[in-house]
Amino acid sequence: MDVLVVGSVAYDSVKTRAGTRDDVLGGSATFFGICSSRFTPTGLVAVVGDDFRAADRALLQEQGVNIDGLETLPGKTFRWGGEYHADMVGRDTLFTELNVFEAFAPKLTQQQRSANIVFLANIHPSLQCSVLDQVNCPHFVAVDTMNFWIDSAKPELLKVIERVDALLLNDEEAAQLTGEPNVSTAAKALMELGPSLVVIKRGEHGALMFHEDERFYVPGFPLDEVIDPTGAGDTFAGGFIGHLAKTEDFTPANVRRAAVVGSLMASYCVQGFSVERLATVTDEDISRRYEAFQDLTQFDAIHR
Amino acid sequence: MDVLVVGSVAYDSVKTRAGTRDDVLGGSATFFGICSSRFTPTGLVAVVGDDFRAADRALLQEQGVNIDGLETLPGKTFRWGGEYHADMVGRDTLFTELNVFEAFAPKLTQQQRSANIVFLANIHPSLQCSVLDQVNCPHFVAVDTMNFWIDSAKPELLKVIERVDALLLNDEEAAQLTGEPNVSTAAKALMELGPSLVVIKRGEHGALMFHEDERFYVPGFPLDEVIDPTGAGDTFAGGFIGHLAKTEDFTPANVRRAAVVGSLMASYCVQGFSVERLATVTDEDISRRYEAFQDLTQFDAIHR
Repeated sequence: MDVLVVGSVAYDSVKTRAGTRDDVLGGSATFFGICSSRFTPTGLVAVVGDDFRAADRALLQEQGVNIDGLETLPGKTFRWGGEYHADMVGRDTLFTELNVFEAFAPKLTQQQRSANIVFLANIHPSLQCSVLDQVNCPHFVAVDTMNFWIDSAKPELLKVIERVDALLLNDEEAAQLTGEPNVSTAAKALMELGPSLVVIKRGEHGALMFHEDERFYVPGFPLDEVIDPTGAGDTFAGGFIGHLAKTEDFTPANVRRAAVVGSLMASYCVQGFSVERLATVTDEDISRRYEAFQDLTQFDAIHR
Repeated sequence: MDVLVVGSVAYDSVKTRAGTRDDVLGGSATFFGICSSRFTPTGLVAVVGDDFRAADRALLQEQGVNIDGLETLPGKTFRWGGEYHADMVGRDTLFTELNVFEAFAPKLTQQQRSANIVFLANIHPSLQCSVLDQVNCPHFVAVDTMNFWIDSAKPELLKVIERVDALLLNDEEAAQLTGEPNVSTAAKALMELGPSLVVIKRGEHGALMFHEDERFYVPGFPLDEVIDPTGAGDTFAGGFIGHLAKTEDFTPANVRRAAVVGSLMASYCVQGFSVERLATVTDEDISRRYEAFQDLTQFDAIHR
């Protein structure tokens, strides 16, 4: 199945324990697209400025991302700057410059409209809605969001959530959106809004997935060194949805495997700045870490 | 195998989203002892004041805890008061009254000295050390600690850690003790101090266990309602060590099962104030939730 992602392509400036990088390739659609392309044909709809580097365009294409939907507008590419705390979990946003992103109005081509699977990355809910209006009955639609939209555009966000199969968000956002601090109760409340699948992302702790009557917990992979956590959530989504699209199997057992693939791809993502490590992940890397996740989590029955 | 726990027996006053309780039975040795007794004969060494209620003494005995080592001194029982935040994770300590605990000097009986397994709950490292001086070569010794002792008695604490098989502490404490914010690196540094087993407790997120060359992640069980998180860490330890003692099996596969038993017992603990729910857990409850942990975490191999 083909995947379409609508989101941001950005230049990030990040400072972490491991070092500093300025104006490196980032953005939700970038991380998602590069990851998902490992598994299935993936097209990207986003906007960049005329400062967007040819090398980055080439990198996306070499990674297999279809960038026919990457619009270029006069002006500067979206920029984000952040500094991570020593624990590599907390972070402070130093600046956000929307630049050309302010004028982003996703227009899908005829081919993009027939995508089987659509991932609405973290953009304004009204833009997410406009994408949903343009696609022809996709098989599976997933949406990500963030605290900013829950605060500023909750009614529009709720309308989007009604229309999707899967919602991905972090635990604080789930609490904020439902007014329910308990993560299980919040997830149930979110499923009552429409999605049959809710993934609560918990950063380094992994993700808790609610799917029909099942719950599945996939940990974050314990790493000796985290280089840069930026993009981990979108990479998780790219692995999760990429695996589902590749296998065309939405059974509960395969949705579990997809969550493991998402978490393992995210674990590679954070082992480099920008997409440095993610872009070099091999099939063998994927198999090896999938097995490492099994070693990390499996236990057998008890003999009482 | 017999288990001996040395720690506190206290009266707690707690305020949570679910309600308020004053002067209810608590303390590390209480939670550990009641939990461990479910699995194996467990004796407790602790001190209470002459205000300690006969009903609480009876409850410990009915739960199977051997309280021959529960000393009564003139004065008041140790008291702790705390209020949990709405997320049931963060908490503020409202007061700590050491009372008779200030004079606590554990003196083991001849029988206690020959315990097979010893758990040194969170007390001053010099007291933990004095217990180690009194026991006759136990098969397995585990120790818990907290930020307060890392700050105020680090040299003594390091001497205790050198002498034990297992160290249990939370992620912030691991970072504080080693100066290493990365949890995997911190755990390795701790293992170099002596223990072959390090359990990093992560509250609602469960625990990450480092055992020889293996790592095992057990999640916290997602509950629709948490009543009172007090005692969850000591209950985890009680289930973990109680299971190991009962099975007399310290192989990696069984240490994993023990961690699951620890996490499942902790999940019952937080479903009631004080020891209310913990004290009524049945064998069937244990089996059922063990299976629920399997459902929560298991996934099968990927077909690429």
